[in-house]
Amino acid sequence: MKPIENNVVGIIGLGLMGGAIAMALRSGGLIPPGGRGRILGCDIDGDTLAAARVDGVIDEGFTSPEPLLGRCDMIFLCLNPATLLEFMEKQMRAFRPGTLITDIAGIKGHIAAAMETTLREDLDFIPGHPMAGSEGGGYGNAKKCDFHGKNYILTPLKRNKGENLEYLKALLYRMGFGRITCTTAEEHDRKIAFTSQLCHVIAAALINCEADREITRFGGGSFEDLTRIAILNVPLWTELFLENRDALLHRITQFEESLEKIKGLIAEEQKEELQETLRTVRNRRAAMG
Amino acid sequence: MKPIENNVVGIIGLGLMGGAIAMALRSGGLIPPGGRGRILGCDIDGDTLAAARVDGVIDEGFTSPEPLLGRCDMIFLCLNPATLLEFMEKQMRAFRPGTLITDIAGIKGHIAAAMETTLREDLDFIPGHPMAGSEGGGYGNAKKCDFHGKNYILTPLKRNKGENLEYLKALLYRMGFGRITCTTAEEHDRKIAFTSQLCHVIAAALINCEADREITRFGGGSFEDLTRIAILNVPLWTELFLENRDALLHRITQFEESLEKIKGLIAEEQKEELQETLRTVRNRRAAMG
Repeated sequence: MKPIENNVVGIIGLGLMGGAIAMALRSGGLIPPGGRGRILGCDIDGDTLAAARVDGVIDEGFTSPEPLLGRCDMIFLCLNPATLLEFMEKQMRAFRPGTLITDIAGIKGHIAAAMETTLREDLDFIPGHPMAGSEGGGYGNAKKCDFHGKNYILTPLKRNKGENLEYLKALLYRMGFGRITCTTAEEHDRKIAFTSQLCHVIAAALINCEADREITRFGGGSFEDLTRIAILNVPLWTELFLENRDALLHRITQFEESLEKIKGLIAEEQKEELQETLRTVRNRRAAMG
Repeated sequence: MKPIENNVVGIIGLGLMGGAIAMALRSGGLIPPGGRGRILGCDIDGDTLAAARVDGVIDEGFTSPEPLLGRCDMIFLCLNPATLLEFMEKQMRAFRPGTLITDIAGIKGHIAAAMETTLREDLDFIPGHPMAGSEGGGYGNAKKCDFHGKNYILTPLKRNKGENLEYLKALLYRMGFGRITCTTAEEHDRKIAFTSQLCHVIAAALINCEADREITRFGGGSFEDLTRIAILNVPLWTELFLENRDALLHRITQFEESLEKIKGLIAEEQKEELQETLRTVRNRRAAMG
């Protein structure tokens, strides 16, 4: 791969994450405006493309991917999981030979499986998941999506070229991410069901059992912290919950059992055992940093 | 009451909240050092008192309350709920006539009930609950406890003097609090069981079902936000959970039912209904601000 500043990078989908990635490439000075490198954006919404051009975040905008794909050295696919596989199937012939492709989907199992078998031999697809986000969604919220010090998960395929993997990792660190973890797609989906999807389900369940809008008068920070993520991108999270259904259901059940245990200690006023549990919890969470 | 800058204010218990209250009175310029007003601190730990004196946060420190109580115009009782009632019973004769007393306990029902009936007639006790805090506890963390814009709940007694209530409210706003809500002790305990205690139980249950310390590699903010409060003051929260047992158990059950509904929609892959629920949740949380 050429140095990033000389590359033509395509961003497919200029939503929250696509917009934030373009911004990190541009404002981080990785692909400066007027240099040899280019940032090409593709989105079905012409207004988004116009806004991104005015912001100087992309050099050119396209409402369909065909004219863009043949020009790119590297592609960030910033689409919802289901759309992504349709896109790859439909556009498989349009990519330039040797293109390094990566995605940002929050579930990886079926994407990794499909790419292992259906990807053109002269392309390289490295599945990825930036652990960053922001309330709301869309290009309009992209500026609020801060990558600095955040986690990034990669679930490399057996066929990925080592040099491309190293190239992508270096690029992600330069974009601001603080820690990159390589793991299998299955492990990713099991862990993410806990750290991300279960947390969103809990936030939704909390909000769904209290209709009083004035309840925030009684908030001291914990309620606000636990439910901020309830302002979610509805189609995206519906898809994530359903696509990672089995792992998520397992984690919900695990959490329900854990909650039931603590509830039991409170109901039976088992002070000693409750204190012991809270001490374990306190130490464990503190050790997580 | 005299203007606050001329008052002698006693803080009983220089832990996280007592320390933060003393700091807000001092650094906010309400009771400046060297003025006519004084901040007197009482704590069983002599090292804490010494630290608070070195910090200039209190003018004098006492390891027992007797010599302090007779000098104060106003008292902030910053003790755990159970200790508080013992303290009031034991020290009832020591307060100066006319003293305005307030507390910071996170549950109010039994405190309000006891004060309605057992308080000396020439004293005024206004139960209160600052909705602010910080991870960990103790005077050492008090600086991290920011009052700016935070909620404060007061559960006035029928016998409270109107002028004292207005005085306390004005003082709290000047200390930085952003919104004061007056309600009954019963309503406070029902609402707080949801916004505070349930959230802490959920955070504890989440941490208690995952022993992997490396799980934070898969964190994107939501897991961290939901579990930060798991680093809790164990004796205090054990007491709060058990003292507000009935209201808390009711809220846990309510939450479990809400969670079970969402789990069912995911298990049965009811996409439309799941989207509808998440839309309701999103709009409701957004409206809460």
